[in-house]
Amino acid sequence: MRKATAPPRKPLFGTELSVLNVGLASFAEEIVRAGGSASQVAWQPPANGDAETGATLARLVNAPAIEAANSKACEAFLAAQPMLSGVGVAREVLKGMSGRTILHSGPPIAWSRMCGPMRGAIVGAILFEGWADDAKRATAMAASGDIAFAPCHHSAAVGPMSGVISPSMPVWIVRNAKQGNSAFSNLNEGLGKVLRFGANSPEVIARLKWMADVLAPALRGALEVMGETPVKPLMAQALHMGDEVHNRNVAASSLLVKRLAPALLKTRTALADIAAVLDFIAGNDHFFLNISMASCKAMLDAAQGVPNSSMVTAMARNGVEFGIRVSGLGDRWFTTPAPVVDGLYFPGYTIADAAPDLGDSAITETAGVGGFAMAAAPAIVKFVGGTPQDAAANTLAMGHITMVRNDAFTLPTLDFAGTPACIDIRRVVDTGILPVINTGIAHREPGVGQIGAGVTRAPLACFTQAVAALGAVVPPGKE
Amino acid sequence: MRKATAPPRKPLFGTELSVLNVGLASFAEEIVRAGGSASQVAWQPPANGDAETGATLARLVNAPAIEAANSKACEAFLAAQPMLSGVGVAREVLKGMSGRTILHSGPPIAWSRMCGPMRGAIVGAILFEGWADDAKRATAMAASGDIAFAPCHHSAAVGPMSGVISPSMPVWIVRNAKQGNSAFSNLNEGLGKVLRFGANSPEVIARLKWMADVLAPALRGALEVMGETPVKPLMAQALHMGDEVHNRNVAASSLLVKRLAPALLKTRTALADIAAVLDFIAGNDHFFLNISMASCKAMLDAAQGVPNSSMVTAMARNGVEFGIRVSGLGDRWFTTPAPVVDGLYFPGYTIADAAPDLGDSAITETAGVGGFAMAAAPAIVKFVGGTPQDAAANTLAMGHITMVRNDAFTLPTLDFAGTPACIDIRRVVDTGILPVINTGIAHREPGVGQIGAGVTRAPLACFTQAVAALGAVVPPGKE
Repeated sequence: MRKATAPPRKPLFGTELSVLNVGLASFAEEIVRAGGSASQVAWQPPANGDAETGATLARLVNAPAIEAANSKACEAFLAAQPMLSGVGVAREVLKGMSGRTILHSGPPIAWSRMCGPMRGAIVGAILFEGWADDAKRATAMAASGDIAFAPCHHSAAVGPMSGVISPSMPVWIVRNAKQGNSAFSNLNEGLGKVLRFGANSPEVIARLKWMADVLAPALRGALEVMGETPVKPLMAQALHMGDEVHNRNVAASSLLVKRLAPALLKTRTALADIAAVLDFIAGNDHFFLNISMASCKAMLDAAQGVPNSSMVTAMARNGVEFGIRVSGLGDRWFTTPAPVVDGLYFPGYTIADAAPDLGDSAITETAGVGGFAMAAAPAIVKFVGGTPQDAAANTLAMGHITMVRNDAFTLPTLDFAGTPACIDIRRVVDTGILPVINTGIAHREPGVGQIGAGVTRAPLACFTQAVAALGAVVPPGKE
Repeated sequence: MRKATAPPRKPLFGTELSVLNVGLASFAEEIVRAGGSASQVAWQPPANGDAETGATLARLVNAPAIEAANSKACEAFLAAQPMLSGVGVAREVLKGMSGRTILHSGPPIAWSRMCGPMRGAIVGAILFEGWADDAKRATAMAASGDIAFAPCHHSAAVGPMSGVISPSMPVWIVRNAKQGNSAFSNLNEGLGKVLRFGANSPEVIARLKWMADVLAPALRGALEVMGETPVKPLMAQALHMGDEVHNRNVAASSLLVKRLAPALLKTRTALADIAAVLDFIAGNDHFFLNISMASCKAMLDAAQGVPNSSMVTAMARNGVEFGIRVSGLGDRWFTTPAPVVDGLYFPGYTIADAAPDLGDSAITETAGVGGFAMAAAPAIVKFVGGTPQDAAANTLAMGHITMVRNDAFTLPTLDFAGTPACIDIRRVVDTGILPVINTGIAHREPGVGQIGAGVTRAPLACFTQAVAALGAVVPPGKE
């Protein structure tokens, strides 16, 4: 305790203090309490303060081998030219679809651990294939081990929500004209009671059969008339028309219908079938989504397999786990439990009804569109929540964890800046900024369908695991 | 001159000066020169300082009779429900089209004073009608007085650029389901060598004949299948997709094609004709423009003729004069020479090649879309010039001269605010803020076509004349 008679202490600082505090906020609070001025910088240590990951990260950041690998991976991604090439049958065009195989979204998962919507969709696929004649027998068959399950991604394919693709289903073929790889996706069924949300009632199966028997041949014919169609210009135009080509595809779908309609009339398709096909595709604003996804997959696969690259080439969810793949880390998945999305729920539903995050559609964000391109789609906030300012802020934030701006996809409201693309696992772990994903939300029970939409984040754990794995691949002294 | 020995003068002001100067900038400059701080406010007296107009304006501003009339006019405008109802033949559905009548854009104008593109289009219309069999005879006929010329607006119609409509041409019919009035527009021919830019070569005439003989009946049939289609929701959706529905109509056109295509297949139209029709409309991103214009005309005509109202119900240009009409001032036009647009010119052309501002399409701005809704269409700056920030600023500025926000047309980037609508001649003259118009630019010679696009302004003189006229209609003491 200072006595009143003691000489006045010399002040520690000669001028008025103006403090920028990084770290524990209590330091700044003390200065303010003492009458000073202090601002707190929002910061947290990399990898949530995990020392081992931090040490690995410190070694990997700016490592020349990684930088060189990333340049190569990014260039391959940017150079890719996905072309809408045709419509095939899964068993004929996808690798590994022999026998009784069913593909699903996200990282690998056994039947016993699958979420409700995925189980429902698999039962529906078994009924569609005619491997069983009722849902009970189909369920038993799925549980028996007689059916091989594999991620769509293992066959260069992607599917929204449950992502279920069985051998007889039609698939879009997107060929990357630059590097020669192809990618695939199933065809969009529309909204409501649909297989991808786990519905498997007779009307769902009948629609799938019509899609295989009428829609697919008609589209195949139309695409032959049109010739291979470059997808990036179509996506770029849609981004100038308020789509982010993940949860908003109304512009891209309309532009596609505008091209398909005249071409359909030049095929040998029966007039009544053309009318039905046009009604179907013109009535589905999400029709383009699966083409967007396959195109993103084609672009990202072009960047896959570059040794030492820290670029993310896939983010996908199976309704139980969220998984990512990394260019320099081969076919490995880095997984963690999938989050439940705190989004905008349709009337009558809440987060308690939701299945955890589901679907391969985060391939769009992996390719720098979707949530990464929200600045292009201010109107989407009515669907996923937030304000137009949040949408732009999300795009800007993603600039901190990506390596390039993709000038093929420009954003008018950001002065025509390119979309932020090529996520770097190092930057995600270093900054703690998590990839933003626009997503639909499925009911946890099969067959109910979509119950909402929202903006979610890829979980950090996938990226810290991947950083550790990259640390093991790029050993000390080798960077 | 002050002597050094004199006592110091008492300063005029006890504290440091911080001055906001309105009016002559030299006052502010003097204060700055003397070491003070002064900001100059951009301001000019109403009506460019014209004392008589200023006095009239002072009397009309907040005049209860005008405010009440404007409420009525604005309500009628907002309540209008334009429905795309059908396709008719001009002579059958437009008033005053008997005999040899040709309609044109803008306020009334005699053949002898018409600009090049309008003359070229009229010659083309005479050839299309078969009233003459070559351009020379058609020109002589036009000059002879044998043909009656009238503004489209006098027949509740609107036409882009030269706006030429002759009796045999097909027209869109837009019926306002709320107040019962109808409005009309010709069908869009596409870009390049087209009648509206003054081209009249055999290919142009052949296209017009095909449009009358094949396109119009097919569209009529499709609209019968579709039933009356509300246009405002379509325009609203397009505004969420980057259109401003004047110079950018790609979204609206695509949405329309998506509806027309399935409907066309349900008509008795021959398959080859359906294919040709779909090729034509799917290949023209401006196809919706004329429907947008007719719908705006239908909404504005609902607000026309309210005694004492100062609301602008038409802005239109004939390539020589710019004219406006006002709700409370009957069918009078208030005109002044049309400006030449200082826009973005296509390679090889300059402002010296341009015809003065031309066309009825400023009906879109009159209705609060087009340039007034540029905030919806940031990508349009690549076509008309400026930056996305300018586009948003234009929309915000138009809030100062309009009386309502139209919640039927919301702007995502402005937090879903409605478009500024219902221009008040008093506010234009009072603020000097001139209505912004996005426009195409025609070559001054007939037949060359579009040579650029840009952002222009409605000239002040039309509005000062209208204020004077309103002053005469609302006499002293009666306000």
